Amino acid sequence: MSDISQIDIHTPIEQMNALNKGSLMESLGIEYTAVDEGYVRAQMPVDKRTVQPAGILSGGASLAFAEVLGGLGSSLLIDNQRYHVVGTQLSANHVGMAFAGYVQGEARLLHRGKKTHVWNIDITNQDGKLVSTARLTNMIIEKQQ
Amino acid sequence: MSDISQIDIHTPIEQMNALNKGSLMESLGIEYTAVDEGYVRAQMPVDKRTVQPAGILSGGASLAFAEVLGGLGSSLLIDNQRYHVVGTQLSANHVGMAFAGYVQGEARLLHRGKKTHVWNIDITNQDGKLVSTARLTNMIIEKQQ
Amino acid sequence: MSDISQIDIHTPIEQMNALNKGSLMESLGIEYTAVDEGYVRAQMPVDKRTVQPAGILSGGASLAFAEVLGGLGSSLLIDNQRYHVVGTQLSANHVGMAFAGYVQGEARLLHRGKKTHVWNIDITNQDGKLVSTARLTNMIIEKQQ
Amino acid sequence: MSDISQIDIHTPIEQMNALNKGSLMESLGIEYTAVDEGYVRAQMPVDKRTVQPAGILSGGASLAFAEVLGGLGSSLLIDNQRYHVVGTQLSANHVGMAFAGYVQGEARLLHRGKKTHVWNIDITNQDGKLVSTARLTNMIIEKQQ
Repeated sequence: MSDISQIDIHTPIEQMNALNKGSLMESLGIEYTAVDEGYVRAQMPVDKRTVQPAGILSGGASLAFAEVLGGLGSSLLIDNQRYHVVGTQLSANHVGMAFAGYVQGEARLLHRGKKTHVWNIDITNQDGKLVSTARLTNMIIEKQQ
Repeated sequence: MSDISQIDIHTPIEQMNALNKGSLMESLGIEYTAVDEGYVRAQMPVDKRTVQPAGILSGGASLAFAEVLGGLGSSLLIDNQRYHVVGTQLSANHVGMAFAGYVQGEARLLHRGKKTHVWNIDITNQDGKLVSTARLTNMIIEKQQ
Repeated sequence: MSDISQIDIHTPIEQMNALNKGSLMESLGIEYTAVDEGYVRAQMPVDKRTVQPAGILSGGASLAFAEVLGGLGSSLLIDNQRYHVVGTQLSANHVGMAFAGYVQGEARLLHRGKKTHVWNIDITNQDGKLVSTARLTNMIIEKQQ
Repeated sequence: MSDISQIDIHTPIEQMNALNKGSLMESLGIEYTAVDEGYVRAQMPVDKRTVQPAGILSGGASLAFAEVLGGLGSSLLIDNQRYHVVGTQLSANHVGMAFAGYVQGEARLLHRGKKTHVWNIDITNQDGKLVSTARLTNMIIEKQQ
């Protein structure tokens, strides 16, 4: 499988991760670790790819991580041949820090409408403490034929 | 200069950019191009470092770009020996797309309180069309001595 | 005219205000003062209808004011017989205070898509100082026939 | 008790509600129904005080409700003689509707820092369906002596 429009909930995780080559997910080292309907789990390293010059995980990396998680989550809920997912709004609070190891991200679907999905995404550090919590709105747009 | 705590509004841009080696800004190819009091301008490439698998600029990259711009902006308004900047909240709307070239980001200070700064950040594509617009709240925290 | 589905950009302001009888706008004393394409201006009193117990304008009243302003603004851009406006996301920063008189609200359209409108709404106190600034996303939904 | 600065977690709910006379909470008919450390529950009527001209609960009323709930919640966590609570940021998604009866609001503390509190507030209609979900950031400010 070489095409994002072919993924669905049954696609093996390694194939989903393979599709991220040559994309933002690769620059940030993001890897999906579990998916289900309305659920995505992934990890992101706290290293030179994601930190601020001071060595702490950048809030910007957490935001990107949150948007990526919810984007995959919505893709797994739709027919990707006919529709595509467009992230339209994200709001996040940064409440903790991460200095090393990996952060874990969990996206859970809050609302599944015909035209919009709303996700909650929580990001925790290696001690299990909440680093950032975000809400993402995705629109589901019909592809031009 | 090898230390983020020494930057101020008079630091040459090349030095500010040099400090970003080994950080999120380098993974995303972000480069500052102009700074002033309450103003930061920067660019980010639309390429494999920042796109979705489908080849479009990821909304996640725009979010990270916005947070980085406002973070530098606040650093330039404070005494970095005594205080540090912590991004606490970001909200963004994605309203357009970018497929190639660079996106330009402009951060403008909306509110300068003693303890919080609020920034507006607009990101435009190479045709000058708005891609994303964000609001970032930074807290100014006194360093433990 | 007794029906919200008949308003358009040429409806006299007094008629728009008359439609607000028996609604949130009346409880909060909100009155529209100027409209144009992609622009709405209104005022809201700082009095017992809108303050916190401590006598300061409640941030909650500012949020409601912002949503109302952008809602009218979108209504004036669409065919209200065929479509209706649904506010889906609002994010706001409270940066100042209001103690007396009226606050002024100005909504300006940032993005006009076929399915979504994004507004910026600024609320200022009687000294012209910014109190709150908000972004509202409205969806434009086709009515079931 | 006639003064908001004297409330704490042990204040009877009727007294908390009595303090809301002559404020936004009274214009919107908001009544607290349960409080605990890091938790507030309240109800708001869906009637002429809170609806849009079309008769549906205004998203603006939900926003105001959310801010009020989190504001009380923070007040109950601090020494109100020395500190006061200032709402600084709210982001909300509207995902459902309410036509009649009451909506219920539940505020739960997500993060308790020394200087900021972050709340999640969920608002549900009389069928228990989610109407709006919000995140509120409050700052805890020391009073000038």
